Amino acid sequence: MLDFTFCNPTQFYFGRGTQQKAGELCRAYGHKALLHYGGGSVVCSGLLDEVKQSLKQADVSWAELGGVKPNPRDTLVYEGIELCRKEGIDIVLAVGGGSVIDSAKAIAIGAKYGGDFWDFYTGKATVEDILPLGVILTLPAAGSEVSPSSVVTKEEGLLKRFCDSEKMRPLFAIMNPELTFTLPPYQTACGAVDMMAHVMERYFTNTPEVDVTDRMCEGILRSVMKYARILMKEPNDYDARANIMWAGSVAHCDILGVGRQQDWSTHMMEHELSGLYDVAHGAGLAVMFPAFLKYQAPYHVQRVAQFAVRVFGVSMDFEKPERTALEGIKLLEDFYRGIGMPTSFKELGAKEEDIGIMAEKCLLNNGDMLGYFHPITRKEIADIYRLACQ
Amino acid sequence: MLDFTFCNPTQFYFGRGTQQKAGELCRAYGHKALLHYGGGSVVCSGLLDEVKQSLKQADVSWAELGGVKPNPRDTLVYEGIELCRKEGIDIVLAVGGGSVIDSAKAIAIGAKYGGDFWDFYTGKATVEDILPLGVILTLPAAGSEVSPSSVVTKEEGLLKRFCDSEKMRPLFAIMNPELTFTLPPYQTACGAVDMMAHVMERYFTNTPEVDVTDRMCEGILRSVMKYARILMKEPNDYDARANIMWAGSVAHCDILGVGRQQDWSTHMMEHELSGLYDVAHGAGLAVMFPAFLKYQAPYHVQRVAQFAVRVFGVSMDFEKPERTALEGIKLLEDFYRGIGMPTSFKELGAKEEDIGIMAEKCLLNNGDMLGYFHPITRKEIADIYRLACQ
Repeated sequence: MLDFTFCNPTQFYFGRGTQQKAGELCRAYGHKALLHYGGGSVVCSGLLDEVKQSLKQADVSWAELGGVKPNPRDTLVYEGIELCRKEGIDIVLAVGGGSVIDSAKAIAIGAKYGGDFWDFYTGKATVEDILPLGVILTLPAAGSEVSPSSVVTKEEGLLKRFCDSEKMRPLFAIMNPELTFTLPPYQTACGAVDMMAHVMERYFTNTPEVDVTDRMCEGILRSVMKYARILMKEPNDYDARANIMWAGSVAHCDILGVGRQQDWSTHMMEHELSGLYDVAHGAGLAVMFPAFLKYQAPYHVQRVAQFAVRVFGVSMDFEKPERTALEGIKLLEDFYRGIGMPTSFKELGAKEEDIGIMAEKCLLNNGDMLGYFHPITRKEIADIYRLACQ
Repeated sequence: MLDFTFCNPTQFYFGRGTQQKAGELCRAYGHKALLHYGGGSVVCSGLLDEVKQSLKQADVSWAELGGVKPNPRDTLVYEGIELCRKEGIDIVLAVGGGSVIDSAKAIAIGAKYGGDFWDFYTGKATVEDILPLGVILTLPAAGSEVSPSSVVTKEEGLLKRFCDSEKMRPLFAIMNPELTFTLPPYQTACGAVDMMAHVMERYFTNTPEVDVTDRMCEGILRSVMKYARILMKEPNDYDARANIMWAGSVAHCDILGVGRQQDWSTHMMEHELSGLYDVAHGAGLAVMFPAFLKYQAPYHVQRVAQFAVRVFGVSMDFEKPERTALEGIKLLEDFYRGIGMPTSFKELGAKEEDIGIMAEKCLLNNGDMLGYFHPITRKEIADIYRLACQ
């Protein structure tokens, strides 16, 4: 087990009706909020009106910036930063899913920075200060409501990059599972895939003797699959929505990742996919994760076999553990397909001829290699993309 | 799944040498610390000197109050409170295990309160303010380094009572597994039993559909048993010490307990045992938990069977699930015995003739019933104590 520091200070308000706390919670940080959101759904559902009502009652005024798209763009972030300065915003309130929250994080750090906020996403600057930031979560997936990270895509060149800073963990996260009842099955499934990836990118490690976090990871994976399957048939099942929603936060607050080397190369490889084709992040991960594991399995037979046995209940083949490992990967793919996710480039609409350019972009600002599990160079990244074509 | 709020703001510094951060961390809160500790071990091991060195380097002076005993007493708390006031203490630094931290919490809230600190432990007062509080953990067990609770025993009448307040979560917890190498097997085992109880008191619930936290609980239980067994033979195994230490914090920070009704009656019944006989809390829990489960099993066959299957790998008896449940309880007892824990009143040195008075004291300030799983009245509390005699 490795040394670590860990602090997860986000205050969670979880359950029915919790969105009504928005005003009171924002009021603790000032008198003017930036309401940041995506498109139609939070408007149509009446959630935005409800939030405004709550702000009004708490004597908080607001400016609005909607229009965040999946794979949020730098262009809207610049608008948000300017709005914060012009309007004297005290707190940024993100109402939405991971894209909205990631965009809000970028705005909140950009508003307190003299230079170009993109500096934080290229490693040129470190976050020193941030506007207070709160969240009303409507799409459990990215874990951005609790994570210290944000991913933004630069419009020019569709470069998708991330920034990590403990300062970016939201101060509070309002999580009402009922707000997710109307999520279409495809988005629900994408969310499940994303949170599972957050667990697996911590799980597939070289660090020995980390059974406490291993077991927690395995438990979350089993549970997310259980409830994701239920939601494909019963989208209004409160308990399934609630378990999935909470799992998404646990998956990414890093309590599953402490003391172990993590390998985020799948996320990075996926970022190139969703950056280039503008596909859903979860769908891209469903394509990339099995490919990643197929590539890694020969180097880490026992760990992938452990995954197969403990997460999917595969019987261990003690003579040929590689069979067990491959069976686990197959069951992961089966699960993805069972909830309507693509598992190949073709189903995703990605093109084999773009592999070269994606492999190259993966390594921009990342040195010569990605990951730690079995580290991969440009050639191996391309090999994994190719495995995802099959 | 029930509605909940959750926030675990403690900053963890986990790993080798982390005690050297003590000075710098205290310095952030002022210039004078109260060093609160127990007896010989932190002195003999040189830890206290190392901490003082760190404080000195960070320009923090200190007052000292040692002498905390297991089942910490109100008398020392009063001394600590007076010392804080007299010396103008800025931060209380607890160096020790659960008893020391619980005592430090009582001092930290008492120093900011005009009345008698015992008011917080009888429910007469609510914690409004607290001196900054940090922890260097030397005994993983109680989870007090992260929990919002404290248990103190009133010398007069040996009344053991607890106080809960989110304000009592320590600001930082320094956790170096190497500091626990010298723990004798008995204390190591008591610690494992205590953290397992913290998990099980959350696990045995009436709340349906809480699979995410169920699975995490089951994982932690398996893992604590694995590493506790290793430590009985290899007390200097760093990874086993590290996993156990982190499990103790996860077990009691309440991330396993959110959204579910919890049942702490076993802890309360044990408090009377350790209050009366001054036995180790963990040893008392090893005696009480199987008795509690034997009593509860007929009311909650499926949940106890789930515990047996998922935690101990018992084969489910679908025709007679009660057999599965009982097999799980037996394996829990076997585990306790295997790490040298008592599992009966006799081994603990407790007396059957005291059952009446203990059952009565259990309910002081607690109404007519304990717990929620299957709530128990005075008669049933006595029945469970009697099951623990066998």
